[in-house]
Parts: sequence; C-alpha cells; structure tokens
Amino acid sequence: MEYLQQTFSVKFEYKVFFTSGLFELSNTCIDDFLLDNATSESVKKILFVIDQDVMKATPGLADKIRRYFSIHTGAQLIPDLILVPGGEGVKNNEDNFHNLLDTINKYGIDRHSYVAAIGGGSVLDMAGYAAAIAHRGIKHIRIPTTVLAQDDSGVGVKNGINFFGKKNFLGTFAPPVAVFNDDRFLLTLGDRDWRSGIAEAIKVSLIKDPEFFEWLEQNAGALTNRDMDAMRYMIKRCAELHLNHIASGDPFEKGSSRPLDFGHWSAHKLEQLTNFAVLHGEAVAMGIALDTVYSNLAGHLSTEETKRAIALIKKIGFEITHPLLEVSSADSPILVGLNEFREHLGGQLTIMLLKKIGEGFEVHDIDSSILKNAGEALKNHYAALNPA
Amino acid sequence: MEYLQQTFSVKFEYKVFFTSGLFELSNTCIDDFLLDNATSESVKKILFVIDQDVMKATPGLADKIRRYFSIHTGAQLIPDLILVPGGEGVKNNEDNFHNLLDTINKYGIDRHSYVAAIGGGSVLDMAGYAAAIAHRGIKHIRIPTTVLAQDDSGVGVKNGINFFGKKNFLGTFAPPVAVFNDDRFLLTLGDRDWRSGIAEAIKVSLIKDPEFFEWLEQNAGALTNRDMDAMRYMIKRCAELHLNHIASGDPFEKGSSRPLDFGHWSAHKLEQLTNFAVLHGEAVAMGIALDTVYSNLAGHLSTEETKRAIALIKKIGFEITHPLLEVSSADSPILVGLNEFREHLGGQLTIMLLKKIGEGFEVHDIDSSILKNAGEALKNHYAALNPA
Ligand SMILES: NC(=O)c1ccc[n+]([C@@H]2O[C@H](COP(=O)([O-])OP(=O)(O)OC[C@H]3O[C@@H](n4cnc5c(N)ncnc54)[C@H](O)[C@@H]3O)[C@@H](O)[C@H]2O)c1
Ligand SMILES: NC(=O)c1ccc[n+]([C@@H]2O[C@H](COP(=O)([O-])OP(=O)(O)OC[C@H]3O[C@@H](n4cnc5c(N)ncnc54)[C@H](O)[C@@H]3O)[C@@H](O)[C@H]2O)c1
Ligand SMILES: [Zn+2]
Ligand SMILES: [Zn+2]
Repeated sequence: MEYLQQTFSVKFEYKVFFTSGLFELSNTCIDDFLLDNATSESVKKILFVIDQDVMKATPGLADKIRRYFSIHTGAQLIPDLILVPGGEGVKNNEDNFHNLLDTINKYGIDRHSYVAAIGGGSVLDMAGYAAAIAHRGIKHIRIPTTVLAQDDSGVGVKNGINFFGKKNFLGTFAPPVAVFNDDRFLLTLGDRDWRSGIAEAIKVSLIKDPEFFEWLEQNAGALTNRDMDAMRYMIKRCAELHLNHIASGDPFEKGSSRPLDFGHWSAHKLEQLTNFAVLHGEAVAMGIALDTVYSNLAGHLSTEETKRAIALIKKIGFEITHPLLEVSSADSPILVGLNEFREHLGGQLTIMLLKKIGEGFEVHDIDSSILKNAGEALKNHYAALNPA
Repeated sequence: MEYLQQTFSVKFEYKVFFTSGLFELSNTCIDDFLLDNATSESVKKILFVIDQDVMKATPGLADKIRRYFSIHTGAQLIPDLILVPGGEGVKNNEDNFHNLLDTINKYGIDRHSYVAAIGGGSVLDMAGYAAAIAHRGIKHIRIPTTVLAQDDSGVGVKNGINFFGKKNFLGTFAPPVAVFNDDRFLLTLGDRDWRSGIAEAIKVSLIKDPEFFEWLEQNAGALTNRDMDAMRYMIKRCAELHLNHIASGDPFEKGSSRPLDFGHWSAHKLEQLTNFAVLHGEAVAMGIALDTVYSNLAGHLSTEETKRAIALIKKIGFEITHPLLEVSSADSPILVGLNEFREHLGGQLTIMLLKKIGEGFEVHDIDSSILKNAGEALKNHYAALNPA
C-alpha cells in the first residue's frame, strides 16, 4: 500500500511558580515572567478572567491588579476585568463561555496575547478551554485559588466545559504557559474547599510516594488546623508529583491508563449523582477509601496499611463512604457507574489498586461481590478487613 | 523565585494513504488500518460525516460504505451517515457544528471511536474541529475529496470554524489518525476546484523544490487536461513537501514564521473581501504572483525566474491579479490587509519572498510603493519588471 509516514513531536514547557501576594507591587514574579517572554516589537495584551467568589472574598483585588499593571510593564492590561461565576455552574452554562469568547474577540486578544484566569478549578477549566480554541490557542496563564486547583487540576494540561449534561464533554489538552500558585488566596477558602484538595495529595502519596504519605500522617493535624507552612509544603509536593507523572507518562492520555485517577471512577459517579453537592475532593476521599479496602479484600494490600490509609482520610476530616457507593443490588448506581466507565474506556476496564502504601498497580476486572464487601466494611467501621 | 519546571514532548504519528476506490470491497486499505489499530476487547465505532456535494456527485456512495463495513470488520459502522453542506458555508453556520456534536453524543462516540470525514477542506475543517474537542479528542480520519484538501489542508494538523464573522476564529491543532487520499473522488470536481489545489503545489515548489517546479512546468498541460497520472504525482509530491515541512518545523505554529503561507497574506484578504467567490487556490495563485513580482522589484529574484513563475501560474489557467490587490491609495484594501496581518502577528511582519525558484526567505517589512508597482506590473502584463 502506498503511503507517506508523518511523525513529529511537539515540546511543551511551563513553570509552576509559588509565591505570596502575586499582585503586591514589590512582587515581580508575574512581571518577570512577562518580560522574559516579551518581544521587542510590541507589548502583549493580557485579559483577566476572575472567579466572582474570589473577587468577593478578596477586597481590593481589582484595584491591585490595575495598579500592578500600571507600574509593571510586562504586558498591557485590558482594563475590563471579566468576572465569571465560581464553581461547577460556570462549566454548565454555555453563556459564560460564549461571553468570554466574545470578549476575547472584542479586545483583539490573539495568539500573541494572554488570557489569565484567577479562580477555582471550575473557572480555570472554562477559561482554559476558551483560550485553547480561540485562534487555535491563546497563551494561557493560570492563577489557581483553591487547594485542589493549586495541587492538581491547575498545574495539569486539561480543560473543559460540561455539555449535553455531561461532565467535560467539550475540552482539549492544552498546557498553560505558566501557573502562579499564590498561597494568600487560600486564606479565604471555606473549610470544605480547604480540605477537598488534600484528597489529591493523599491519592498521589498512596500510589507513588510512601514518604509523602508519612509526612501527611504526621502533618494531618497541622493541615486541618490550617497551618500555612504545612499547606504550602503539601501543595508543592503534590503538584510536583502530578507534574512528574504527566511528563513521564502519556500527557495527552492517548492510552487508557490513568494512574492519577486512583479512586476516581466511583468518585466521578458520586459527584454526578449528588449534582456536585459532594465536592470533588470529598468524593475522591471516599473513592480512595473504597479502592483501598477493595485492594485489601482482594488480597493485595495488608490490613495494617489499609487501616493507616483509612485513618489518614478520616483524620483530615473526610467521610469514608456514602450510601450511593454501596452495592445493594445488580443495578446499584456504583455498578452502573462501573459499566459506564468500562464503556468509556472502550470495552476494557483499567483501574488502579494498591499493593502497598506508595505503590499502585492496575487491574482490568472488578469483582462486584468484593466491591459489595468493601462498601459494607467501610460502613461498618471496616470491621471485616482481610486479616491477610 | 521558587518554581517547578514542567517539560515534556508529545509524539504524533499518522500515515497519508494513496488509493483508488477506497470503498470497493476488494480495497482493504482502510480496513487494514482499522484492524491494525483494533484492540481485542471491543470493536470500535466509526461515524461518517459526508460533504453533501460529494454525496450527490458520487451515486451509490452511501450504499458502498454500508456494504463495505458489512463485509469488513475493522470497525462498527454507525449506519446513519451524517450529511453536511459542502463549501465554506459549513464553517460559517454554527448549527452544522452543533448538530455534529449532538450526533457524536447520541451515538456514544468516545475517545476510542472514530469520526471519519469525507469532503472538501471546509467539511474536513469543521468535522475535524468537532472531533478534536468532543471528549478532548476523538480519533479523526480524513478522506479529502478536492485537490486542495488532498495536497495541502487535509494532510496537515489544523482544523477550525468561522465565528464572529472571522475565518477560523475557533479551532485547534489536532493531527488526524490517518488520511486516505482516493483519486476517484477527484473525477467529479468542477474545473475551478480541480485547478484551485494546483496553486499550493506551485507555492511549495517555489519556496522549497526547484525540481518540482520544473516538473510542474513540464506537466502544466497534462494537469489542465485533467490527466490523472500527472495529478496523482503532483498531489503526492505536494503532500509530501507539506508533511516534511510540518514535521521539521513548528507543527503547532508557536512562533510566527509561516513559510507554507507564501503568497497567502494577500490571498486571505482577497478571499474575505470577495466573500469566498474567489476560491482559496485562485486567491493564492494571485498572492504568489504578487509576492513573486515584489521579490523581483525589490531586487531579490531574477527577471527570468519571475517570468517563469508567472508563466506557470497563467498556464495552469489562473488569473494573476485582481483589482482588490492593487494599491491605489493609503487605504487600499491590500494595505489594510497588510496591517491586519501585522497586528495578527503581534506587531512584527514576517513574510516570505523568493530569492530564486525553489528558495524562499523571510522579510519583516513590505515597502508599499514597491507593492504598488508589483500590482501595476501584473496588471500591465508585468512589462515593468526589474531587469536586474
Ligand atoms: N482540568 C483538570 O485536570 C481537573 C482535574 C480535577 C478537577 N477539575 C475540575 O475542577 C473543578 C473543581 O475545582 P475546585 O475544587 O477548585 O472548585 P471550584 O472551582 O468549583 O470552586 C469551589 C468554590 O470556591 C470558590 N473559590 C475559589 N477560590 C476561592 C478562594 N480563594 N476564596 C474563596 N472562595 C473561593 C469558587 O468560586 C467556588 O464557589 C471541577 O469542575 C473539576 O472537574 C479539573
Ligand atoms: N486546515 C488547513 O490547514 C487548511 C488549509 C488550507 C485551506 N483550508 C480550508 O479549506 C477550505 C477550502 O477547501 P477546498 O478547497 O477543499 O474546498 P471546499 O471544501 O470549500 O469545497 C469546494 C466545493 O467542492 C465540493 N466538492 C468537494 N469535493 C468534491 C468532489 N469530489 N466532487 C464534487 N464536488 C466536490 C464541495 O462540496 C464544495 O461545494 C477553506 O475553508 C480553507 O480555509 C484549511
Ligand atoms: Zn481529582
Ligand atoms: Zn493555502
């Protein structure tokens, strides 16, 4: 057969900066980045898209940004700061997305300009998607303001909006040009959002880093007491593990292995069934608990380590199970979710389990009777763990 | 400053197949591709999106496709074949795009399924964009049916739709998983569409391949007489030069150099101003003529080679100039277009000119009086070429 072979690689690079008070005049972190990437010919425009709840929680933010860019000259600020609703809702309502595209067009933001988004993972997902498709990709800066967005979603390469009632039905893989993690934003988070992002740290420690798991055990109290030093360390290490994983693996997820989605298959179903009343991290904590106990009951993980994992999840303040995660009949939502996930993967399951703390492995089958037992064990204070 | 550095590369690979009668039962080209990419667990779905004008011009196409996939088992055909209008219009009307997303959702087409598009560059651009953003990217197969789509647009990595009245305002860089160039489709093309794609071959020969230019000179008659062997050779060589350029350069166009857009800056403006009454290739032919004569008048290209280039463009049957390409005052459309292009590039022009046949080079300034003279020379049978 006659053919031409096309093969090429595209290199992506970005830095994740850690700072405090990004828009203090004395903080040159973002201005330095912009100046380093400036060209002699022209000043680049920068359009800010801001989570309304962050704006409300941070009096003076708008003035600070305007002041910052009146003094620092790395980019030319579009004086209109675009406010969008915070939370999952912003990804559901197509209008937010269209309005942002409209604004990008109105201000002539092109491939040489920046769209910077400040907010939780939801706002970053929506704004990142708009930036990714306008002009086939405008330079996108992320300024995540939740723990989850700083330690996981905001440092990765995915974006998206919900469509046809389906989570992330539309989206792309599009790395940002830079991420700025400013710990000051975390001060105004409610306790649930503060806690939620800790689930991703537990997750990644369980599958990749036993020392980080121990650190989390030792610092669980500090984290729940909102100790900033502890949180800063946790976010940085968690972000680093996520970044390393993305870089060493399959960044644009062409295969069907998703190690970083440990505990996520059931979590996604739970979020959806509760209409996002259960937060992502809360659902992930329960999903991790389930797959950890499953690992034990299936004979892979020792009971001692299982108990340590569950104890950490509880110590952080998470619930470890939910009625919707229990198998009571063949059509329990969790089994429906498992089937949907199998279909989504094209017919074969790939699910990560634990063989020890700090080491995951993949299986292609889930035994529904073991899953039922795992759910019951969690409900009954995991009295029935496998003594093996 | 504290930061984490993220760096990774993503590899992209696909083949461009050349075949005749893709859906003849005896032709296993596409089935072999699908079987090679099959996994043991499940049969992948394939959804066809077809250019209405191609469907009309190819009686029995629908039956052939259905018959083919009833015998060959590389993928499971979605029996609904999705018809979309052909031509630029399909990229202007958002409804076509939304309907396609809706169909993708309705049939549960996911990242493990295929969206195959049959049509001209316009249909491929629209369908490729929908495939690129649904579920963050469904496997996309392109089956281009015009000369332009087979030798240029269909073998590349770009897609898009028009939005806010702007050409390709929305789109992504997303390589297909395979391209099938079937020469039988070309038989039903009108003469203008047959000719249009030849402009891209002239373009790429002028900037990259003097032997290919000579081949085009020698085979201009055969090409205009619709000789299939000549057209097959031209398409393959032109596609190859485009593929090589993409692979060796900057596939996702992060920089601002666009060598393959030789002659395109004025062509884009002309297409737009005539509301696409002037076809892409026709506009490109005039744009090439303009930048070739400009190269001569600016002292870069010999008069002999300039004449050979213009003679080839004319021999293929193209017009070499258009009133809208002439500079008559400071606000002539062509000067407006030049400014828009400068802004689009972020403040500095990068335009390819010729130093000889087969070798382009880039400049960052265009002298409007030389541009005026170039337009006039073309209008007056280029009597005023630079004797240098
Ligand atoms: N792209 C990815 O790879 C990825 C990965 C995981 C999750 N996500 C997505 O992230 C989203 C969840 O993000 P999230 O957990 O950051 O929550 P969120 O963005 O939904 O925000 C939660 C709430 O906190 C508010 N908020 C944000 N920052 C605040 C601050 N500093 N002070 C006060 N209030 C603040 C928001 O306005 C919102 O009301 C989900 O849509 C999920 O799908 C994406
Ligand atoms: N993605 C890219 O890199 C890229 C590059 C260049 C151009 N393009 C785009 O491609 C489009 C132009 O594509 P095109 O020149 O292929 O034209 P087209 O897709 O607009 O088609 C022209 C006409 O020919 C009809 N047609 C197509 N195949 C036919 C066949 N075999 N027999 C009979 N009729 C047929 C179409 O229905 C349409 O009416 C433009 O939108 C342009 O922007 C994209
Ligand atoms: Zn998560
Ligand atoms: Zn072209």
